[in-house]
Amino acid sequence: MNDTEANASSDADFLEDFHHVATIGATDNAGVDRQAATVDDARTRDWMRGWAEAHGFEVRIDAIGNMFACYEFVPGSPYVLLGSHLDSQPLGGRFDGAYGVIAALHAALRVRESIAESGQVPQFNMAVVNWFNEEGGRFAPSIMGSSVYAGLFDLDAMLAVRDLAGVSVAEALAAIGYAGTDTPPDAISYAEIHIEQGRILEREATDIGVVESSWYTQKLDIDVLGEQSHTGATAMADRHDALVAAAKVVLAVAGVVDEFDDEALVSSVGQHVVEPNSPIVVPRRVHMVADLRSSDPAIVQCARDSLHAQITEIAKDHDITIDVEDFDIRDKRYFPETGVELVEKAVANEGLSVRRLETMAGHDSVAMNHRVPAVMMFVPSVDGVSHCEREFTRDADMVRGLGVLTSVAEDLVRGELSEDRDGAVWIGRSTATAQTPVPIPAADSRSGGDLQTTAEAGA
Amino acid sequence: MNDTEANASSDADFLEDFHHVATIGATDNAGVDRQAATVDDARTRDWMRGWAEAHGFEVRIDAIGNMFACYEFVPGSPYVLLGSHLDSQPLGGRFDGAYGVIAALHAALRVRESIAESGQVPQFNMAVVNWFNEEGGRFAPSIMGSSVYAGLFDLDAMLAVRDLAGVSVAEALAAIGYAGTDTPPDAISYAEIHIEQGRILEREATDIGVVESSWYTQKLDIDVLGEQSHTGATAMADRHDALVAAAKVVLAVAGVVDEFDDEALVSSVGQHVVEPNSPIVVPRRVHMVADLRSSDPAIVQCARDSLHAQITEIAKDHDITIDVEDFDIRDKRYFPETGVELVEKAVANEGLSVRRLETMAGHDSVAMNHRVPAVMMFVPSVDGVSHCEREFTRDADMVRGLGVLTSVAEDLVRGELSEDRDGAVWIGRSTATAQTPVPIPAADSRSGGDLQTTAEAGA
Repeated sequence: MNDTEANASSDADFLEDFHHVATIGATDNAGVDRQAATVDDARTRDWMRGWAEAHGFEVRIDAIGNMFACYEFVPGSPYVLLGSHLDSQPLGGRFDGAYGVIAALHAALRVRESIAESGQVPQFNMAVVNWFNEEGGRFAPSIMGSSVYAGLFDLDAMLAVRDLAGVSVAEALAAIGYAGTDTPPDAISYAEIHIEQGRILEREATDIGVVESSWYTQKLDIDVLGEQSHTGATAMADRHDALVAAAKVVLAVAGVVDEFDDEALVSSVGQHVVEPNSPIVVPRRVHMVADLRSSDPAIVQCARDSLHAQITEIAKDHDITIDVEDFDIRDKRYFPETGVELVEKAVANEGLSVRRLETMAGHDSVAMNHRVPAVMMFVPSVDGVSHCEREFTRDADMVRGLGVLTSVAEDLVRGELSEDRDGAVWIGRSTATAQTPVPIPAADSRSGGDLQTTAEAGA
Repeated sequence: MNDTEANASSDADFLEDFHHVATIGATDNAGVDRQAATVDDARTRDWMRGWAEAHGFEVRIDAIGNMFACYEFVPGSPYVLLGSHLDSQPLGGRFDGAYGVIAALHAALRVRESIAESGQVPQFNMAVVNWFNEEGGRFAPSIMGSSVYAGLFDLDAMLAVRDLAGVSVAEALAAIGYAGTDTPPDAISYAEIHIEQGRILEREATDIGVVESSWYTQKLDIDVLGEQSHTGATAMADRHDALVAAAKVVLAVAGVVDEFDDEALVSSVGQHVVEPNSPIVVPRRVHMVADLRSSDPAIVQCARDSLHAQITEIAKDHDITIDVEDFDIRDKRYFPETGVELVEKAVANEGLSVRRLETMAGHDSVAMNHRVPAVMMFVPSVDGVSHCEREFTRDADMVRGLGVLTSVAEDLVRGELSEDRDGAVWIGRSTATAQTPVPIPAADSRSGGDLQTTAEAGA
């Protein structure tokens, strides 16, 4: 690139960068596999570092591996942060996270250009962030980097988290050269754009979603304890097959949604480990995690109670033990109304359509909204699929989103939303005035120890 | 021990040895964990070697790690083999296998003494064998050592089999010092005693079971292929959850037994691996192995057809793909009638009760019965449980079994059963005159590659 190009951002430039990054860690079916602190995660980081330095940003890496591309308008002022994450699920999609980071880089370039053209000095500085380990596929809990930054997770505890191969976060970051020592920029506000991962925008042919609140979610740690026996020699009547009982639990979790309105509740079992898992041994144990999410906390509570009752019956019918524990309860949280209105105004200025939404998924913005006022935007996802290779968003939708993000970012840099700060500390609203700490099951080495372990985990 | 004791075997000596070996690799709940070629397997092997040498046997180790304690009565004659296996399932019982080896050692001592007292030279020599890797928990397929000896499995292919940590059989045997180079003794017949692992003998208060035939068995390799998606953001209606469909398959496999008479068929899913197995990802794949066994081949065939039809329906209902392949088909096989009668005669002489049985489990004797005439005996199992720590057989029952084994072993050494040999090659009877080769699914590294891979596998 020449000097002029280095400071311009056309839609074509943005798309070229986006589609280039999608080649890093690309899978056979057009997805990406860039789990946190792997070689391919490092390659996207190197790309971002190179891009940022070439475009005149100062790159800082903090102790949990978050990357910040900083640009100072006003020495000493706090920073508006824009960003998302470049890591992915195993066999994940190429849009989840990466779109938000690359859009933020181009939005920052455009804001800088616009500010320069206006000749006005803005109120705050600006940085684009690539948060470490949003996905949590390799290192649990997810949303790790932004939660450490927001003060929700302890840095040392997170650095000590190990993957299934026994490698710690600290070791993995050091191995890829991203165990940073820089002081991160001090945030004043945060904005993020992301694919919807649902099909509401697509169905309603709406360009942009603005997130009002995050869903209430909780997980259930379910441990089905039968008795190991011989698949050939043991009479059917003498068996206490943990897998047969577990299959009924899986169906109960899937079926509990039918007790409520369509799509009012989503439920699933994602983790499910059988022991001893030998073709000729009747299983003694199945350890699983069920995930319940709803906009309405009462629905999750009601589903949870129904499952407790059903599981008690299953255990009785099979004469085995099933332990159930609540964990990873995340309260419904609201994004500031001022931020929602900023997005609505920007969309109107661009001549696009907008809709208020809730997010069923966790995001870095949910963690950041604990620390500073945050703005969260969505663009449409084809078929609503995500966390898979088939995830897809059209170029035109990404470009429209970039335009809105740019507008919002410029408003933030010029001082919008900062009045939402309550003194030095932003207090986001939640449905509970005081959250009761929830007992967290001990990480279990037998099933890989990969249970979520904190109250804000779960992407 | 002194020289006199070294050549005597009292019931107390036998029980002392048995209960000593049960301390090797003992688990907290009175079981043992001595998977093939582990440190604790090596300790039981070292114990056997020491015992055999102290009692005047010559120990030979062959290339697949089978251990033979040989005693020569007639230089150049073939050997009657007596034995079982000292390895166990993970968290297995202390009787399965170990009882048969230790009873064989003491039976051999008693036979030797009896022959010496009689002053008659027997027809054959005698060796006690500890077959390598009967259980197959660490290295699949099971019944490995005896199947290699019997010519059913290829030696080099078995030495190349790897466990989940990537260690090969050859490496594991070398690591424990049991990668042997000795020529194994040439067998003329085989006898084995084992716990029943069922409850027929206990229920009928019968002392000894003699095995007439092994059950017809087959496995189904079932691959449920859904689509990975987000446990929070993906609407329930948009999901293709492999685990929910798999749960229905598990229940179909468990329920298919109800289509037949009580206990006419046993069925189970022992291996069941979920991918990607993340708490926040809807599963894309469940790979499982179902095990079907019946005395009547037609019942297994009928159950298999019923499951195929049910699984087709489940796949259709869930709009996902479920691949089903037959593998590890083991024909019903008969033990020689002459051997069954030998046991019945021995039991009568001891003043005990006997019953003819079938074995639902695979055993080294089933493999050996392909090469030489084999005799298989059972003693009662409390509650019929096996492949678990709660497995139990009373001392008095073990002692009674030792008496019968001794009597049968002496008959074999004196020449009984050898006339069942059809020229040089023993042809056991099976229900099929010619077995059709069955396609074997490729080992799958994603699920650990621990599928059974041969027609006679499966303990």
